[in-house]
Amino acid sequence: MRVGVLTGGGDCPGLNAVIRAIVRKGVQEYGYAFTGFRDGWRGPLEDDTVRLDIPAVRGILPRGGTILGSSRTNPLTARDGVRRVEDTLARHGVDALITIGGEDTLGAAARLCGEYGIPCVGVPKTIDNDLSATDYTFGFDTAVGIATEAIDRLHTTAESHMRVLVVEVMGRHAGWIALHSGLAGGANVILIPEQRFDVDQVCSWVTSRFRASYAPIVVVAEGAVPKDGDMVLKDRTLDSFGHVRLSGVGEWLAAEIEKRTGKEARTTVLGHVQRGGTPSAFDRWLATRFGLHAIDAVRDGDFGAMVALRGTDIVRVPMSEATARLKTVDPALYAEVGVFFG
Amino acid sequence: MRVGVLTGGGDCPGLNAVIRAIVRKGVQEYGYAFTGFRDGWRGPLEDDTVRLDIPAVRGILPRGGTILGSSRTNPLTARDGVRRVEDTLARHGVDALITIGGEDTLGAAARLCGEYGIPCVGVPKTIDNDLSATDYTFGFDTAVGIATEAIDRLHTTAESHMRVLVVEVMGRHAGWIALHSGLAGGANVILIPEQRFDVDQVCSWVTSRFRASYAPIVVVAEGAVPKDGDMVLKDRTLDSFGHVRLSGVGEWLAAEIEKRTGKEARTTVLGHVQRGGTPSAFDRWLATRFGLHAIDAVRDGDFGAMVALRGTDIVRVPMSEATARLKTVDPALYAEVGVFFG
Amino acid sequence: MRVGVLTGGGDCPGLNAVIRAIVRKGVQEYGYAFTGFRDGWRGPLEDDTVRLDIPAVRGILPRGGTILGSSRTNPLTARDGVRRVEDTLARHGVDALITIGGEDTLGAAARLCGEYGIPCVGVPKTIDNDLSATDYTFGFDTAVGIATEAIDRLHTTAESHMRVLVVEVMGRHAGWIALHSGLAGGANVILIPEQRFDVDQVCSWVTSRFRASYAPIVVVAEGAVPKDGDMVLKDRTLDSFGHVRLSGVGEWLAAEIEKRTGKEARTTVLGHVQRGGTPSAFDRWLATRFGLHAIDAVRDGDFGAMVALRGTDIVRVPMSEATARLKTVDPALYAEVGVFFG
Amino acid sequence: MRVGVLTGGGDCPGLNAVIRAIVRKGVQEYGYAFTGFRDGWRGPLEDDTVRLDIPAVRGILPRGGTILGSSRTNPLTARDGVRRVEDTLARHGVDALITIGGEDTLGAAARLCGEYGIPCVGVPKTIDNDLSATDYTFGFDTAVGIATEAIDRLHTTAESHMRVLVVEVMGRHAGWIALHSGLAGGANVILIPEQRFDVDQVCSWVTSRFRASYAPIVVVAEGAVPKDGDMVLKDRTLDSFGHVRLSGVGEWLAAEIEKRTGKEARTTVLGHVQRGGTPSAFDRWLATRFGLHAIDAVRDGDFGAMVALRGTDIVRVPMSEATARLKTVDPALYAEVGVFFG
Repeated sequence: MRVGVLTGGGDCPGLNAVIRAIVRKGVQEYGYAFTGFRDGWRGPLEDDTVRLDIPAVRGILPRGGTILGSSRTNPLTARDGVRRVEDTLARHGVDALITIGGEDTLGAAARLCGEYGIPCVGVPKTIDNDLSATDYTFGFDTAVGIATEAIDRLHTTAESHMRVLVVEVMGRHAGWIALHSGLAGGANVILIPEQRFDVDQVCSWVTSRFRASYAPIVVVAEGAVPKDGDMVLKDRTLDSFGHVRLSGVGEWLAAEIEKRTGKEARTTVLGHVQRGGTPSAFDRWLATRFGLHAIDAVRDGDFGAMVALRGTDIVRVPMSEATARLKTVDPALYAEVGVFFG
Repeated sequence: MRVGVLTGGGDCPGLNAVIRAIVRKGVQEYGYAFTGFRDGWRGPLEDDTVRLDIPAVRGILPRGGTILGSSRTNPLTARDGVRRVEDTLARHGVDALITIGGEDTLGAAARLCGEYGIPCVGVPKTIDNDLSATDYTFGFDTAVGIATEAIDRLHTTAESHMRVLVVEVMGRHAGWIALHSGLAGGANVILIPEQRFDVDQVCSWVTSRFRASYAPIVVVAEGAVPKDGDMVLKDRTLDSFGHVRLSGVGEWLAAEIEKRTGKEARTTVLGHVQRGGTPSAFDRWLATRFGLHAIDAVRDGDFGAMVALRGTDIVRVPMSEATARLKTVDPALYAEVGVFFG
Repeated sequence: MRVGVLTGGGDCPGLNAVIRAIVRKGVQEYGYAFTGFRDGWRGPLEDDTVRLDIPAVRGILPRGGTILGSSRTNPLTARDGVRRVEDTLARHGVDALITIGGEDTLGAAARLCGEYGIPCVGVPKTIDNDLSATDYTFGFDTAVGIATEAIDRLHTTAESHMRVLVVEVMGRHAGWIALHSGLAGGANVILIPEQRFDVDQVCSWVTSRFRASYAPIVVVAEGAVPKDGDMVLKDRTLDSFGHVRLSGVGEWLAAEIEKRTGKEARTTVLGHVQRGGTPSAFDRWLATRFGLHAIDAVRDGDFGAMVALRGTDIVRVPMSEATARLKTVDPALYAEVGVFFG
Repeated sequence: MRVGVLTGGGDCPGLNAVIRAIVRKGVQEYGYAFTGFRDGWRGPLEDDTVRLDIPAVRGILPRGGTILGSSRTNPLTARDGVRRVEDTLARHGVDALITIGGEDTLGAAARLCGEYGIPCVGVPKTIDNDLSATDYTFGFDTAVGIATEAIDRLHTTAESHMRVLVVEVMGRHAGWIALHSGLAGGANVILIPEQRFDVDQVCSWVTSRFRASYAPIVVVAEGAVPKDGDMVLKDRTLDSFGHVRLSGVGEWLAAEIEKRTGKEARTTVLGHVQRGGTPSAFDRWLATRFGLHAIDAVRDGDFGAMVALRGTDIVRVPMSEATARLKTVDPALYAEVGVFFG
């Protein structure tokens, strides 16, 4: 039995922990051999492989990134993509393929498995925590921890100088990182993509905070959008993957606050710092268990399945369902934390 | 409406986050007043109170410990305890009492509520994560993070000098901290109280690890016990709370490994470092939500209830059930991570 | 004997450690009383004071910011400034004034002392480490540590995605933070204000790094400037203190690199995160010793003196000399680390 | 020109940074080739080498430990040691040897160079910071940072439970780590090997601290010794290197404090955690500069020299002088920080 492994999409602390767990259990308990594919779906498309055995996974548990590399290549939009993937798998005698990735990577795996019979098992990965079939995805806890530590640090500066500090965190379509880090960091305002914000309301919270002799910290998800008419985005460009790049909400908001309240406001954009470096203990635990259960799904021939966290259990769900819709922040939960605004 | 709050048992990162959330929501949304009781049940017993309002909870979110102090005083074993608690509550006009604590503190609250009609709501707290009614308790994630970081650091020393390093972590009756930090830290052996260990088996794992040219790290819970005949504990004393203090398993084990394998072995005992300092973002999130839901339970008059985490939801469970039995590590889960031993 | 204390300029981890050391030694060893002035020179100008005794400095050692607040108010440019300062000091019976601050704050102290006989002792503070009379200033080590940790995290993302990552760090006039954190973080290019950079040279280093199959990280000080003709700054605004605000070199450079090399480039702007939060152990040590020696200078009547670090000794230098010129990065030192570029 | 490199003695964060700097500059600027010797002097004695070139040093800057391994083997006490070292160097065509190590390793290098003409250059390494010729050694700042963070964490526990917490840190013969981390961590008592301590004095400080309603933290160097008659050491064993192992002072002291003051006392022994893991930014900077200057000393043929830090400069000193006597804590400096005791 030979198992292929690939990692697709943006990188995420914990990818290496998944790979290590798959290989350790696959080799030691089931006697499987492995083939690593390089840079997500580009690997099987272009027959680009990497040795994947016990020595290859030594020492990678605490390391961020992915030893397999990653890309956003989509086999379904590539010319002759499906056939080329099938040929590569056949050439290497790969009997099953574990795909670790987000909506796009797993969406492709679900179709390759369902429509073309390629035996895939999925492991969910999204640093934004916006996949609906699982309680959490690995990488999210690490990102929240980094953002929270940054917010902690900003408190002292905010208060020593009585300035407004705006922190822009990741989250294009879902506000999980903003919500968790904003709450954990004691932010006074948290703005998420799920709910358009009113700049005047933000300014009123900012002002009331100053009246209590504390300086406000505003956490804003990169995908948060003000109510119609409030904002003309400075930069609305396409990134290299063809997605709209909504940069600038943090700087824009700081400028608006300064203008409307007369208080100095500064911005910190954490950017890629949030997704790099060593995974938190929580993420290593989750990623490792995902890996152990993914190789079990392969052993069981449970193709089309994706591993997922439910409470403290790892379960299997159909990949197709998991990628059907985004998990966004429930308005009730957002309202719950609203008690800390202002 | 006036609400009392107390924290009992060993300290735990996140206690202040619970207190802050209770007070912020209680004052701002429900208009409640608060009375803080000092040092757990000692406060109501001896009428020792502390002011608890919005200014009192400013800035405490990231701070470890508890602004209310803590103790292991039990009102049910104190002379005239129940009456004295009732008198104190009456004297201050306290209409409901939120008790934040572990098995002992909540056990007392459950009986005071069930048998004497004192209106209590519980918030679970145990750094060992061994309460059965909740997926996780706050403080646990912080402790696992600290232990994991220590294990990460030990890897380089272990390998530069080809020594065995034994790390003793918290966990008297349950091995959760050892299991999570050992897995996250890439330990080669993890020993937990739930399953007696065989020193020869440990030595065999240690030896096989050296053969692969890596130095082994052994994580052992303070409450782990070898099979009969293997160990004579150096220190088996009573601590100030009348519990048996099983110190020394780490040092004992290192000495045994050195004797039986001929390899140098050293011990690190993390001790109280694991339960101090700022809570992790995960623990601040969980503790804050526990606090928000506890004050809601008070508003609903849901006395006898304890808040608990189930998946990503906060639910209410009867305090009496929650404290009925210890949540220990499932043998199946321990077996699952056994693939990394040796 | 009554001693006044004030902190001026931008905040800096370690300010509280200085204040605590001054008060602890002043009270315990010399029996002095203290008056805290709020918000730098604004305090004596407007007679805004704060109680400063042993209880006031409890627990502040690990905290960022300053319990005295800070501002950039200059007594020499304020109307009747000198007289108002003298009046306030006389009104409170202040016999000596310890001023903790940077070039501006100490420059004012030097003149008030030299020209008007106000008995001042100085403690140097600049997070940029650009004061010439001392080997290091506190806060710098903390800032370098934070920037280095961020760079460490970026490596995994850079390599997983083969992107150029540009990190903009503090340093308007001196490149110390860029130099130290860039070297410690293993950056491939470090750009400092002291030496105009050539974008084509940067692009050539970036390209050569990719050829070695590694993704480049470029650390740029906020005050770094390209050679004439290379750059049109996007934002060249005045900040609230009337200084030119050279924001945008990081984003500008990333765009240029993308344009000229065809490689994706992203920017992280660390901003105020670098100057907030708990001071490093090094900075607590240095700040504490500065405080202990400043109060000794007061006891010795050594007014006009500033404490400074020379090797491992704390010495005294004339404040006027200390603030005479900026300590910039020596070209020889910059050349020394150039071996790691590309 | 071929240069050999070896690392001897206990491991220390920053060793890899030195090796990387030597190789990067040696190859890129001077065109040298390198031979790595494994496990300190054992390498040349037993002709055990490892490839050392640019690819070998990629990515090692942030990693603790040493890629060359280490040992305490002494070529001067090994049978035929000098001849075997000479033979190995000749066999590989090694023209110069950079030895990175402490008193023992450099002492051997000094004699091999001075008495036998083997061309050695030294780089000082001692985590205890007790080498007299240099202001600081790398690794020390990292150890102090780890110990300080642990002490920070203990404060909350100490205060929530009103317990005495004893922290045993490294330092057999010199109290630098205890002094710096104790001061930075706000300890109430710091005990160092240089000055015998009086347990009754310690207990009196502990008691006075409790009277101020704060719980005391006592930092004790592993080599600290009470006044005659005060202590019977529990464990006074020989370690594998033939040195007396003074373990147990922390636990012994906690027991004494408990006995004499009636207050609960607990111990944390940080152990090897202090010397593992990623080096601090300060240590990476220092270690890198040591490496750059060591290879310059080789180029200059300045054999017998050791690089050292003086202020912010790297200078060269004779190895023989550097290893002549231990740098211990100056009584005046210890007295200076005594203001914080009690």
